[in-house]
Amino acid sequence: MRTIDWVDGGIELVDQTRLPHEFLRLRVTDPDALVDAVQRLAVRGAPALGVAGALGVALLATSTDSSEEVRSGARRLRDARPTAVNLSWGVDRALRQLDRGAQAVLTEALAVRDEDIAASVAMGENGAATLRELLPGRSIRAMTVCNAGGLAAVERGTALSVVQTLHEQGRLGHTLVTETRPLLQGARLTAWELRRMGAEHSVIVDSAGPFLLNRDYADAVLVGADRIAANGDTANKVGSFSLALAARQAGVPFLVVAPESSIDPETPGGDDIAVEERDASEVVAFDGIATAPEGTGALNPAFDVTPAELITAIVTENRVVRPGRGTPPVGTVPERPQDR
Amino acid sequence: MRTIDWVDGGIELVDQTRLPHEFLRLRVTDPDALVDAVQRLAVRGAPALGVAGALGVALLATSTDSSEEVRSGARRLRDARPTAVNLSWGVDRALRQLDRGAQAVLTEALAVRDEDIAASVAMGENGAATLRELLPGRSIRAMTVCNAGGLAAVERGTALSVVQTLHEQGRLGHTLVTETRPLLQGARLTAWELRRMGAEHSVIVDSAGPFLLNRDYADAVLVGADRIAANGDTANKVGSFSLALAARQAGVPFLVVAPESSIDPETPGGDDIAVEERDASEVVAFDGIATAPEGTGALNPAFDVTPAELITAIVTENRVVRPGRGTPPVGTVPERPQDR
Repeated sequence: MRTIDWVDGGIELVDQTRLPHEFLRLRVTDPDALVDAVQRLAVRGAPALGVAGALGVALLATSTDSSEEVRSGARRLRDARPTAVNLSWGVDRALRQLDRGAQAVLTEALAVRDEDIAASVAMGENGAATLRELLPGRSIRAMTVCNAGGLAAVERGTALSVVQTLHEQGRLGHTLVTETRPLLQGARLTAWELRRMGAEHSVIVDSAGPFLLNRDYADAVLVGADRIAANGDTANKVGSFSLALAARQAGVPFLVVAPESSIDPETPGGDDIAVEERDASEVVAFDGIATAPEGTGALNPAFDVTPAELITAIVTENRVVRPGRGTPPVGTVPERPQDR
Repeated sequence: MRTIDWVDGGIELVDQTRLPHEFLRLRVTDPDALVDAVQRLAVRGAPALGVAGALGVALLATSTDSSEEVRSGARRLRDARPTAVNLSWGVDRALRQLDRGAQAVLTEALAVRDEDIAASVAMGENGAATLRELLPGRSIRAMTVCNAGGLAAVERGTALSVVQTLHEQGRLGHTLVTETRPLLQGARLTAWELRRMGAEHSVIVDSAGPFLLNRDYADAVLVGADRIAANGDTANKVGSFSLALAARQAGVPFLVVAPESSIDPETPGGDDIAVEERDASEVVAFDGIATAPEGTGALNPAFDVTPAELITAIVTENRVVRPGRGTPPVGTVPERPQDR
């Protein structure tokens, strides 16, 4: 299954707002419909948004001969989620081919898609190899947070690609999925992906994760990344930090799995990462039902920061970095998102 | 406000199933109606259940001259929640006065109520004094989990009694309340209590607590206890352990506030505490709406265990125990729930 793809001259994508209750593939041939899909989070996840941006420009370029129209459509697409770095990265990469014609734009967009698929495969293999080395000769019960799966990419994803690779190798034990309040991406999306791959799993409330690690319910914690600072400190969905603390306490490996494009050498460390505050309404209401007295305020940090010292390994498509184990700091590599 | 009380020959209690949306006082004059209120969690929390048990026997004793009827009614009440130790403790304590007549039973039940109120006041004062000593000369931003407030007792409660005492002393800063999945006692009940006392507060998702501690959003963590083992290891609502880990990482005091009756000298340590597993449906559905694909399983531990080494102080109505600081282990005191 591909979360987003180019099929018969148009874009097809899984509408994630309907999951887990309905599996609906949207066919998008109108660039404005893609803007709408991005805005209402029908497609989400950094890698998937990069591909959406590139394929969106291909859709524009193949539907008009006016490069002015393509460029203004690309601007609307880029602005659909202005803080999503990968979206504008994908738009810009495809747009740079516009002078060579629509076919060149499409070829570049398909390359973005194919590179994403290959990166997910490589991350899965690198992560599984790392875990086989750290935990030799036994099946591995994984714990994961949020959705770092195929639904956040084209196929397989990041942390969940490692889970899938272990499953394909017959090495995966029972997997625990934190539900991931407030938006429940773990319960809604990751549980759905694990069911599709036929992997045994259970959902847990987020705060049960640390305790279950301490009671030996999991052998490894696998998370994705929103941003990795030069020193290896990692911003990811809120809840990752508490699992990292508990993993250290329990002596369980904690792996960050993310593409090289998530590494930001311009950010020295975790303290330099601004924490995105989302709307209080996500916390104090559920599906429109208030969970707290009317007018109650909330703090709603969308992610947290895990210091490198708590990370056993950072796994990318190219390498495995072991903070504090003699490998060079993750941020010393010249490759940056805009260069990819 | 009293969560449960004896008024004009009957029991009055706040129906907690209606909070935070409606504040309803139930008047109970029929013993079977009290059994129903206990079973559907209209009254909950260990101290409040002890008082409910004692007042329930008083209700029985004042409504019939047949001691056989009183004893069979007391059995039904005790069985309304068979695992709630405090409920049967309260029932038994009042029942022991039955041979001296209905008035003696009522006097004993009112003593149980009054002792609970006095214990909450003393815990509040002891906890506030401990925090003033640990954090001299500044206002204290508290973080608390679940509901360890007046709604779990007759008045003021345990951990939240400390918060209220600091508030009355003008020493309370902005308080953070973890929503406490799956049943949301923090968002529903603790936020409601803080609003009533006029204390500034915000709700957060449970997994944000550890990160916000690490970013200096709170000066102290205050939790209640379901059971404290002889060595000080403490079982409390799931989520407490991860806050304790994060509090240590951040250098923030972590206080357990509970009555002496929560200390169980028969249980040597945390590993000896069985973890209550509740129904999966609490995790994978919210107000009847599924949050995960149909048929998804869940693990649902109702509480977790915080090792004594992570606890700065255990505060009861009688004393302050500092694990690892030379005070005798909490379990060396002869007083036990059944002796109170």
